[in-house]
Amino acid sequence: MGGSTFGTLFRVTTWGESHGPAVGVVIDGCPPRLPIAIEEIQRELDRRRPGQSAITTQRRETDEVEILSGLHEGLTQGTPIAMMVRNQDARGGDYEEMRDKFRPSHADFTYQAKYGIRAWQGGGRASARETIGRVAAGVVARKVLAAVGGAGVPFDIVAYVKRVQNLEADVDPASVTTAAVDSNIVRCPDAAVAARMIDLIGEARKAGDSLGGVVEAVARGVPVGLGEPVFDKLDADLAKAMLSLPAAKGFEIGSGFAGTFLTGSQHNDPFYNAGGGHVRTRTNRSGGVQGGISNGEDVVLRVAFKPTATILREQQTVDVNGQDTTIKARGRHDPCVLPRAVPMVEAMMALVLADHLLRQRGQCG
Amino acid sequence: MGGSTFGTLFRVTTWGESHGPAVGVVIDGCPPRLPIAIEEIQRELDRRRPGQSAITTQRRETDEVEILSGLHEGLTQGTPIAMMVRNQDARGGDYEEMRDKFRPSHADFTYQAKYGIRAWQGGGRASARETIGRVAAGVVARKVLAAVGGAGVPFDIVAYVKRVQNLEADVDPASVTTAAVDSNIVRCPDAAVAARMIDLIGEARKAGDSLGGVVEAVARGVPVGLGEPVFDKLDADLAKAMLSLPAAKGFEIGSGFAGTFLTGSQHNDPFYNAGGGHVRTRTNRSGGVQGGISNGEDVVLRVAFKPTATILREQQTVDVNGQDTTIKARGRHDPCVLPRAVPMVEAMMALVLADHLLRQRGQCG
Amino acid sequence: MGGSTFGTLFRVTTWGESHGPAVGVVIDGCPPRLPIAIEEIQRELDRRRPGQSAITTQRRETDEVEILSGLHEGLTQGTPIAMMVRNQDARGGDYEEMRDKFRPSHADFTYQAKYGIRAWQGGGRASARETIGRVAAGVVARKVLAAVGGAGVPFDIVAYVKRVQNLEADVDPASVTTAAVDSNIVRCPDAAVAARMIDLIGEARKAGDSLGGVVEAVARGVPVGLGEPVFDKLDADLAKAMLSLPAAKGFEIGSGFAGTFLTGSQHNDPFYNAGGGHVRTRTNRSGGVQGGISNGEDVVLRVAFKPTATILREQQTVDVNGQDTTIKARGRHDPCVLPRAVPMVEAMMALVLADHLLRQRGQCG
Amino acid sequence: MGGSTFGTLFRVTTWGESHGPAVGVVIDGCPPRLPIAIEEIQRELDRRRPGQSAITTQRRETDEVEILSGLHEGLTQGTPIAMMVRNQDARGGDYEEMRDKFRPSHADFTYQAKYGIRAWQGGGRASARETIGRVAAGVVARKVLAAVGGAGVPFDIVAYVKRVQNLEADVDPASVTTAAVDSNIVRCPDAAVAARMIDLIGEARKAGDSLGGVVEAVARGVPVGLGEPVFDKLDADLAKAMLSLPAAKGFEIGSGFAGTFLTGSQHNDPFYNAGGGHVRTRTNRSGGVQGGISNGEDVVLRVAFKPTATILREQQTVDVNGQDTTIKARGRHDPCVLPRAVPMVEAMMALVLADHLLRQRGQCG
Repeated sequence: MGGSTFGTLFRVTTWGESHGPAVGVVIDGCPPRLPIAIEEIQRELDRRRPGQSAITTQRRETDEVEILSGLHEGLTQGTPIAMMVRNQDARGGDYEEMRDKFRPSHADFTYQAKYGIRAWQGGGRASARETIGRVAAGVVARKVLAAVGGAGVPFDIVAYVKRVQNLEADVDPASVTTAAVDSNIVRCPDAAVAARMIDLIGEARKAGDSLGGVVEAVARGVPVGLGEPVFDKLDADLAKAMLSLPAAKGFEIGSGFAGTFLTGSQHNDPFYNAGGGHVRTRTNRSGGVQGGISNGEDVVLRVAFKPTATILREQQTVDVNGQDTTIKARGRHDPCVLPRAVPMVEAMMALVLADHLLRQRGQCG
Repeated sequence: MGGSTFGTLFRVTTWGESHGPAVGVVIDGCPPRLPIAIEEIQRELDRRRPGQSAITTQRRETDEVEILSGLHEGLTQGTPIAMMVRNQDARGGDYEEMRDKFRPSHADFTYQAKYGIRAWQGGGRASARETIGRVAAGVVARKVLAAVGGAGVPFDIVAYVKRVQNLEADVDPASVTTAAVDSNIVRCPDAAVAARMIDLIGEARKAGDSLGGVVEAVARGVPVGLGEPVFDKLDADLAKAMLSLPAAKGFEIGSGFAGTFLTGSQHNDPFYNAGGGHVRTRTNRSGGVQGGISNGEDVVLRVAFKPTATILREQQTVDVNGQDTTIKARGRHDPCVLPRAVPMVEAMMALVLADHLLRQRGQCG
Repeated sequence: MGGSTFGTLFRVTTWGESHGPAVGVVIDGCPPRLPIAIEEIQRELDRRRPGQSAITTQRRETDEVEILSGLHEGLTQGTPIAMMVRNQDARGGDYEEMRDKFRPSHADFTYQAKYGIRAWQGGGRASARETIGRVAAGVVARKVLAAVGGAGVPFDIVAYVKRVQNLEADVDPASVTTAAVDSNIVRCPDAAVAARMIDLIGEARKAGDSLGGVVEAVARGVPVGLGEPVFDKLDADLAKAMLSLPAAKGFEIGSGFAGTFLTGSQHNDPFYNAGGGHVRTRTNRSGGVQGGISNGEDVVLRVAFKPTATILREQQTVDVNGQDTTIKARGRHDPCVLPRAVPMVEAMMALVLADHLLRQRGQCG
Repeated sequence: MGGSTFGTLFRVTTWGESHGPAVGVVIDGCPPRLPIAIEEIQRELDRRRPGQSAITTQRRETDEVEILSGLHEGLTQGTPIAMMVRNQDARGGDYEEMRDKFRPSHADFTYQAKYGIRAWQGGGRASARETIGRVAAGVVARKVLAAVGGAGVPFDIVAYVKRVQNLEADVDPASVTTAAVDSNIVRCPDAAVAARMIDLIGEARKAGDSLGGVVEAVARGVPVGLGEPVFDKLDADLAKAMLSLPAAKGFEIGSGFAGTFLTGSQHNDPFYNAGGGHVRTRTNRSGGVQGGISNGEDVVLRVAFKPTATILREQQTVDVNGQDTTIKARGRHDPCVLPRAVPMVEAMMALVLADHLLRQRGQCG
């Protein structure tokens, strides 16, 4: 597996730099005969687009997607689906200073150290623009899950901003809707807290600073049996998927870190006969995964995103020759990545689940 | 990649069930001409062995390892290294009740649902006995890292129990030693807190209950440049590695979830010229990884382990026919997995780093 | 994928050297609930066992297989199946001369050059003993194919010796049986030619020389639709599988090299309506594969095996210091690998087909 | 690994259909800091372009390549290199009849059977247009080999038409040059035979028929030690690479099928001290590979290509409902694929060698 490819059967390869000609994705192994409308892809790309609101980066990109292969008369063919978005508003000039200096806690230094070369404009491959391909692929993955997926509850994924710095929302994963999430620009379905989050992010922006927080996500209608012990456990692959997102620093599933304060007798999820041949659990501290395999309950996870590394304040750093200097970023940056991280988290969750759905079907029928 | 294989170039495949004839591991892609003594493998297996102390399960296994291939006159040959441990004290009878009932929050139900069959004795493949292969392979991975690895600081990995329930230790990752970790049976290098942890675990055991907590780990001397964006980021693969361990529910690197309460200007790690051609950071909130690539600082991570699911108390559950019932586990179980998780966390960290070291050498020379 | 692992979903990893403690295999990704009897494995291992007849090597190995994991009450569990055979009659002393000299056209030189070390006794990992794991895994693969596989014709694989040096057998792939193949020690179902082959091999042995030839194989009852364009075409993976066998130098499917002497109008296989909803072809120059995907006709292939490199005659070579010298092999060697290659070819064919069956089910349902 | 991805470290993913918007490739894992000029890519694409001569298909495509990512100021960055060619002269109308009928021995039937859908215009994904991505990637692979590769002889790959039907050329692999190959439109460096081949192909075209033959290829300057036993042997991966090309039906390395008529004493390649620390072989029946690992001699292989399946004659077939019918292809087709297969074979050889070079560096340094 190369570093730019994700998945075993439903396989996604992204390519492209922030300030290169384009960014894109190739999906290999998609089941045939699924209907895909370009508008569905575009709608999701618009959710992660820069410049979509007052609290995101003001880079202006329409992020118009082109589907280059893999569809025949609106249906997937089972062959690779290639999609591409041209970069338009790439102002490399904003990054002139970064040609010679490393932004603290960004990828500038490590890319240079690893490859001995880097596209210094806009972070190159480390830019969040890379996630365009993931989000586009996530739409296809959801189609797979909807078409092939579990019985009972219809399949659905909803992510939302759970916390910005110390402002934490009250959200019920079992019932939250995408409509509620998208009802405000910070993508927090708790309207009262959302308003305060928006103010807080606005203040950070004015101060040339940035904020972090937590995105929570739920997948409902996940079939029982997804996940491949012992290394490709469902939660292990979800953890990898989430930590592969820019600025992610932590992951937890179900009770997560908080669950470690409980005893086993407090923490265990009792099974019960839910009728109709269904076994369910009274609580869901497992977050829908037991022994690395989905148990049919909601899959609930949380991802910690650090405050954006690029800030408009002077910071100490070194130049490409290793000499001490200072840097004050220009360019257009998100003061808080969380609102735009919501569709990314959803996409990665869909990629993991779709891949495991096909793997389970392959091995176990 | 199959579910029982981990890694791209340094590849580890484990096999075996808790109550089957044996458990083992095959390592493929190991560099040649590394000296491996069976005693080194055995020493590390002894650290994860059951029955090693009063606060672990009392299952008696000597866990004596046999090396079946891949060595020639004490040196690795570059060919697959196969290692095996026979199961000895496998008392399937203790699990008779589990033939028909699912333990809450264990893997019994999901294995049955996924495969339509399961080795009900001792959790089968979901047992912590599976990690014997990982720990044995971890010793070989450390050899790779020591031989090929970074300049300057010698390569080293140290994990330790950071917290049991609400008892948190005060440990400096930069200086902690394995000797300090192994100086007590709970593997917490803060002696005062360790004593209280041991008491707390003892109480839980007496109560037929179990505890969770957090293991912290540090890798020192990691070369700059390890990690393969955008999906196989070093922290992404570490997250997957840790979540693949039994009972793991959360992962964080560097500042992790706590870092989300800071602003960017508080959180960023300033670079400085450390002399001798080395660039370093004043703080290490990045946990040694920036943009998914190691930056030469200590790699520091934490893993949340839930309280052991198998407890000696009556719990509500269902039987294999989906009917409501109760279960009260027998068998020999760890009241707290953390002391034995320490060598597992170290092993998984070594596997990730060794694999990425070879990948980096392959691509970038 | 590591060099000792084969397959994407049905994945086989072999390990072990000729003169090490043991050789073995781990199968990951096997569908659950298939019945496997150890006797079935053993029967097939006996077909490839050394010392089975006057025309094979006289090394005495019982090749008794032990199943170490993955079965529960005689059924596969979906977890890794580990199998092992202890080496018994390993006379390293016969190879003393090879410690310092390279056998011409064997793997001694290249292993030393690649790894800087080698197990010089008996060819180490390059020995045909490595194929024990493949043959054992092939039995399991056939179970997968029989259980999951195609409609209509029952699934079957039959390989046989088609040619030894210039003695070519007349065999109909459509009707050949394993019973006919195993009716003589050279495994050629054309009895008259088989007798002459046996004589010819006997003469070569007496002369301290060796012979090559061609094994042909047919798979019947292969479902339509197996093979993953554009790189993992069914014939491409079969070609790789066969060339991975010791001493293989060529591969062809269907009309192969001979078909290149025909024109398109002579070569094309006309389709016709065979009734019952089946489309078939009048001829089978395609060898059951078109565009890299099985078309439901018999899959027919041929593999060229060179004359055994190890011969009991003096040959020119160099020593480990690169100095000119001569070598005259001792040890026990097959004067012609073809009779024992028959079960190996069958096994590799089964591994490829089983893997593609699961992949097809994963992607296309 | 998905079916459209090839390689372990140097990984190539192709996408695109014959009559879709475009075809392309993504290369992941390329070493950084290699100079790549778009003209070099274009030059090689021109060698495989349709319409390049009187004996190829007359489809008019300029096949102008666009590099979309992975380069920075003319150097590879170590990030994915995406390249694309727009389809221009796609006359879907020529294929109207194929919407409902399957061409004999083409991929129409098997794609329909596998996926339940197919892009019937021009063969869709099974078209030779898919190989554009391979050829473009091959140029990059050669850069890797030239930069990183072996000592002594400079690295070089040359393929050529060895035989068309029964017209066989006399060519010395050790000395053949690309200039000689490209000196005529059939790409056969034996000028006298080339002229006759051109005539023969012209006759077949007039007759609405097609021809097959053999391409031979040599790689010179291959470092010792490439190839990963036991499954990813160098010759095994070469066999897979070649059989993955459209119309390939056979593969042989070194002495191949012909070598099976020799005895071991005739066939073995004696080693000798060639001075300067080099060990060489007197003959090269091994084709540069022993035990699956390169030995430093020229790697020589041959690929059998069947006569083009699409011919302009009436043939018996079935329609999509399985009913007997006839078909007479229209459209523009190669009467013999071999001249255009030459750059494809070279590209696949380069991909295999570059990948194994990086793998060897990764494992063995």
